[in-house]
Amino acid sequence: MSDGVKINRGLKGIYFERSAVSEIDGAAGRLSYRGYDIDDLAEHGSFEEVAYLLIHGDLPKAEQLAEFDSELKAARELPKEIHGIMRALKAGHPMDVLRTVVSALATLDPGSRETDEAGFVRNGTRLTAQLPVVIAAYERIRNGLEPVMPDPSLDHAANWLWMLSGKRPSADAARLADLDLILHAEHGSNASSFAARVTVGTEANLHGAVVTALSTLAGPAHGGAAEDVMRMVREIGSPDRAADYVKVRRANRKPVSGFGHRVYRTEDPRAKHMRAGVERLSREMGRPEWYEILQAVVEAMKPYARHGLNVNVDFYSGVIYQLHGIPMDLYVPIFSIGRMPGWVAQCLEQARQNILIRPLTHYNGPGPRAWVPLNER
Amino acid sequence: MSDGVKINRGLKGIYFERSAVSEIDGAAGRLSYRGYDIDDLAEHGSFEEVAYLLIHGDLPKAEQLAEFDSELKAARELPKEIHGIMRALKAGHPMDVLRTVVSALATLDPGSRETDEAGFVRNGTRLTAQLPVVIAAYERIRNGLEPVMPDPSLDHAANWLWMLSGKRPSADAARLADLDLILHAEHGSNASSFAARVTVGTEANLHGAVVTALSTLAGPAHGGAAEDVMRMVREIGSPDRAADYVKVRRANRKPVSGFGHRVYRTEDPRAKHMRAGVERLSREMGRPEWYEILQAVVEAMKPYARHGLNVNVDFYSGVIYQLHGIPMDLYVPIFSIGRMPGWVAQCLEQARQNILIRPLTHYNGPGPRAWVPLNER
Repeated sequence: MSDGVKINRGLKGIYFERSAVSEIDGAAGRLSYRGYDIDDLAEHGSFEEVAYLLIHGDLPKAEQLAEFDSELKAARELPKEIHGIMRALKAGHPMDVLRTVVSALATLDPGSRETDEAGFVRNGTRLTAQLPVVIAAYERIRNGLEPVMPDPSLDHAANWLWMLSGKRPSADAARLADLDLILHAEHGSNASSFAARVTVGTEANLHGAVVTALSTLAGPAHGGAAEDVMRMVREIGSPDRAADYVKVRRANRKPVSGFGHRVYRTEDPRAKHMRAGVERLSREMGRPEWYEILQAVVEAMKPYARHGLNVNVDFYSGVIYQLHGIPMDLYVPIFSIGRMPGWVAQCLEQARQNILIRPLTHYNGPGPRAWVPLNER
Repeated sequence: MSDGVKINRGLKGIYFERSAVSEIDGAAGRLSYRGYDIDDLAEHGSFEEVAYLLIHGDLPKAEQLAEFDSELKAARELPKEIHGIMRALKAGHPMDVLRTVVSALATLDPGSRETDEAGFVRNGTRLTAQLPVVIAAYERIRNGLEPVMPDPSLDHAANWLWMLSGKRPSADAARLADLDLILHAEHGSNASSFAARVTVGTEANLHGAVVTALSTLAGPAHGGAAEDVMRMVREIGSPDRAADYVKVRRANRKPVSGFGHRVYRTEDPRAKHMRAGVERLSREMGRPEWYEILQAVVEAMKPYARHGLNVNVDFYSGVIYQLHGIPMDLYVPIFSIGRMPGWVAQCLEQARQNILIRPLTHYNGPGPRAWVPLNER
């Protein structure tokens, strides 16, 4: 239409706010959280440290980390009503159940209605601890098993694997799970973080904003990539078939899962950190062929790297989950475990200098119509 | 900061999409749904007709309306698990419980995962029917009463009052409740509708989008106005004190609840339709003073009308609910009963020509920082 109104579809290229949480340089392939390069965080940090950094703005000193860690551990025990709700809903998709439980946790915790800074930090810390506990308990319940009690000797990532399987992960496996969470913890103005900020913009509480984020992450165009990669790996089946698979996909102008990213024009700086860990885990779990398939796909995709088709963060995640025997419908919930501190950080930032987020639509519907009584229609 | 990047805080004045659902002319004080003026809809329409109009785009013919009506009535019965969940959460805020139940309904209904047009229409129609049933049942349960069974001889608004109170409303009271829902059914790109569209933008399902909308409507800056008016009416207490109340508020530069609107520069075209009904209902319920207080406030505010401080749609709603003995924490949930078809219509529109909604933030955080080991911090 030529009515002179500029429509910014998808709000592409529109800046809605300044943010001090993460910086993405898509051209250079760089990402930092609060000024710390993702390479340093991946190499040196733990998920607990990174979560603290995102939520509080700086890396914790030892005593701050100890306090944060004990807050996280204290929040691992869910209110008694929650397992009953999970049992009632046990045929549901885990992402729907997770969203329902987070919403229910708000009703069971009077502190959930605190919307000042301290309330957001408290509730964000508690939800960071609770998300993996909810997912693990639900996976047990829907399989007819009793939930596993949390183990306070285990860190966030290792405890999640423990509560999911009832088995203590190896040090390597726990570290890789920790790394996967760190790499997913924050990524600028993605759709779920933005939607959460819109919710906070009405002065809603953090539980509401996280429910919004979960609803938005659940859309396959946002959180579905790790599942897509795993489906691809299964379809390829063995390393020697990867080159043909890629050739046919490219010839049919179909995307190859786990390659390319909306933001990065070069390699996704998060992906490389998982490669070595996935190789080790695939050997530990006795399934080296899955790593080999991935590497064969990488090899076959090399000619397309100059078109910006590089490995992205989702390329390795799905195989990690698969190696742990985690069903595919938990992949998006696991993404949310990692992203939780980023949501909290952005919601805090939004609340600090809050404003209603309310862009416009331009009317293009029917002109004035006169009412017609029912019996004359 | 003077880095030359334009930040559109609150996305004010930015058009993100065209929309054929409603047209608002804030300067002229006009509102239409799908080309039908709100005055005609308020005078002639029923909530069922207006909901059909919003969701399907045109007023229903008699047989279409009959079919839509029977779909709505069939959906009034909730899955058996829902009352148990409400009992487990009965200390929660009704808005948190409503959001939890809508989320849980997704897990109990395999059809909730259908994201094509037919799926959105089906799920939107069902949720339109279910919202008032959930709110009424929860209000009964938290008061230790049994939920009231739906009455298929009653229309949407009358059945809601029936299920809430176990008493059949008078024709006048039912018509006023119907009118209140019609007037709240849709209002352009408000924060909850926009947030729901962001959720749909990731190809999420309608239940998820409605959960997002509920989380966003729950913020006091969006859905809290009817409560504010009722608090004001109680504070004023009797009609003769209204003029003083207004004088003091104005002198202290404090807002008078129920006056002025972000969009309308003149009278909110929805407000006038409720005046006569509220007058009648306040007499029917033996509390004429509440209507008299409202009118005394209107009288006292007349000098400020030229500053755009006119009565808005929320001015009369709170008193209607109060006259029915409905507690204040149900006012926002009632708003959602009305707004539901507008959310469905906008989500359908978004899904039809879908795009990821992802504006940008501009980084203003710390510059590159080197990692410092924990024991050196």
